[in-house]
Amino acid sequence: MTGGAAFLDEIRSQPAALRALVDGGEAVRSLGRRLAARPPRLVRLVAHGSSDNAASYGVYALGMLAGLTAMRDSISLTVYYRARVPFDGSVVLALSQSGRTPDVVAYVEEARARGALTVAITNDEGSDLAAAAELVLPLLAGPERAVAATKTFVNSLATLALLAAEAAGRGREVAEAVRAAAAGVEEALPGLEALASELALPFASVARMFVAARGVEYATAREVALKLTETCRVAAEPATATELAHGPVAALDRLFPVWLIASDDETLPAVKATASRVLATGAVLVASGCAAARIEGASHVLPTPAPPLPLLSPLLSVVPGQLTAWALARAKGLDPDRPEHLSKVTIAP
Amino acid sequence: MTGGAAFLDEIRSQPAALRALVDGGEAVRSLGRRLAARPPRLVRLVAHGSSDNAASYGVYALGMLAGLTAMRDSISLTVYYRARVPFDGSVVLALSQSGRTPDVVAYVEEARARGALTVAITNDEGSDLAAAAELVLPLLAGPERAVAATKTFVNSLATLALLAAEAAGRGREVAEAVRAAAAGVEEALPGLEALASELALPFASVARMFVAARGVEYATAREVALKLTETCRVAAEPATATELAHGPVAALDRLFPVWLIASDDETLPAVKATASRVLATGAVLVASGCAAARIEGASHVLPTPAPPLPLLSPLLSVVPGQLTAWALARAKGLDPDRPEHLSKVTIAP
Repeated sequence: MTGGAAFLDEIRSQPAALRALVDGGEAVRSLGRRLAARPPRLVRLVAHGSSDNAASYGVYALGMLAGLTAMRDSISLTVYYRARVPFDGSVVLALSQSGRTPDVVAYVEEARARGALTVAITNDEGSDLAAAAELVLPLLAGPERAVAATKTFVNSLATLALLAAEAAGRGREVAEAVRAAAAGVEEALPGLEALASELALPFASVARMFVAARGVEYATAREVALKLTETCRVAAEPATATELAHGPVAALDRLFPVWLIASDDETLPAVKATASRVLATGAVLVASGCAAARIEGASHVLPTPAPPLPLLSPLLSVVPGQLTAWALARAKGLDPDRPEHLSKVTIAP
Repeated sequence: MTGGAAFLDEIRSQPAALRALVDGGEAVRSLGRRLAARPPRLVRLVAHGSSDNAASYGVYALGMLAGLTAMRDSISLTVYYRARVPFDGSVVLALSQSGRTPDVVAYVEEARARGALTVAITNDEGSDLAAAAELVLPLLAGPERAVAATKTFVNSLATLALLAAEAAGRGREVAEAVRAAAAGVEEALPGLEALASELALPFASVARMFVAARGVEYATAREVALKLTETCRVAAEPATATELAHGPVAALDRLFPVWLIASDDETLPAVKATASRVLATGAVLVASGCAAARIEGASHVLPTPAPPLPLLSPLLSVVPGQLTAWALARAKGLDPDRPEHLSKVTIAP
């Protein structure tokens, strides 16, 4: 198989993975009803890598749909330092596609012993993480062969959205919206593949860039930056649009481009203001997302379809980033299926 | 004044700033006693830039000393999306040296209206933020003239440590330890200035790097990365040691160095394991912190004195990063006092 075939195949199979999740979501519905009946004081999300990027999204999904306070918790505070923070009244959502990340498993064991309701969100129901947690929400994404996560990432996002929706009594509505988003990805894929291939050539010499967004799309910015870093060896740093304007903007120049992810929601004015700050430095601007066309001065535009609900925009807006990582890796002669120095499982050092 | 004189002067004045904070800390003691009497369910830290880096430290200080759950809260969830998360039982610690960051002020106004105890941690007691919050903890750092924050950063760290200590009934002990840390910085400064100047020459051609740590020192890694990015135009990305090994390690090579901050605490084995992963890629390794000498294979070592308490190590370990930012900016002909495209206040876009 040519290098990158698995990665591309898995990007293309995301609509099917999302449909499988919605079809098989009984565990999500059941936990959602439980959260609705007894809202937890705090939702603690724990993960590394792409799963941690999905956790960033969970903070917004749980807050906006269900009015729940959710945080990406520090693993080291509990696992290494053994801090005595109170776990009663907390729900722990531990995300790991492999279910084998050692310090996430250790965190779940400790949190469960100390009274938290622990939930594993994983693509492997037979994993250590699934065994350690009280409940398991399977990602139902099917086997993922490329080292860089794609369909397990979007299914992690969708699991968090469906769970939050169920906790808010809006499960059916959001399940239909996830199906509509899957259809949107399917329709947009051929056009986005062509746009990503066009972007790969001018970006083959880019050594460093920022990927920025605000709010719901910050998770997308983190994930796109990680994909570009691990598969294309670009130093792609994620930032919130406001952070970028606060300090890092001082480092920009023509050879240090910025990729902005713009959605048509309450954060769009902040993202547009950052675009102006970026353009003033002379840096090249890439814009993607459903509001990409509204970012003036972008040299490259990768628009995605409007999401059925604003909160679901990352299911669509991550795709141009994944496809650009694939095309750019190929343009640079790298194998996006098997990046150097990496394995599929986080063996936490 | 030669470019960078204010920045260097403010780095050197950090011991004096820390002593002024300990001497004038009545507001911190009073709030700490209040938290001890009625522990909040949740501490919500909000900030941007260097202040947000200090907030990362607050999560550890409040968790380790006082057993409190603290999170860096999403500003956009409340200010832009108007999510209905519950604020009762929460304490809000809003950090901004200028006190003029608009969306931090807006968050505090909303949180206060919805029942949170709101606290401004700022260097300007006459600022909008101080006016919006119920309580003010002044940073007492004196005027900061360089655009890049230094003494307001360490005084933010120390404020959070002193507050957590007071909430744990250990205020006097930690106040003495902060004084000892200030003395440690003072003694170490001349040697570190020499080491930072030596590092600047080989790093003048470095375009991108990672700055990594784990646990308490993650805040330091974020702050050192921001200093190098904004004053030296290096794409310096912060990462936890575990995150770095998870994906970004795939991007490393001889011209893409890694700076590891190593402290002698429970996270040292994880940091050492990451060092091995980094060295296997051929990347150049810089090690700083009080356990820098225990990182085998580092090409450059900037050791800092052992902290009086492990939790206070960032008060010392940030200094080599600040000094390297100063020396490297000068080596590259940049003015670290006034980076391009930046102003001292975050006017959030």
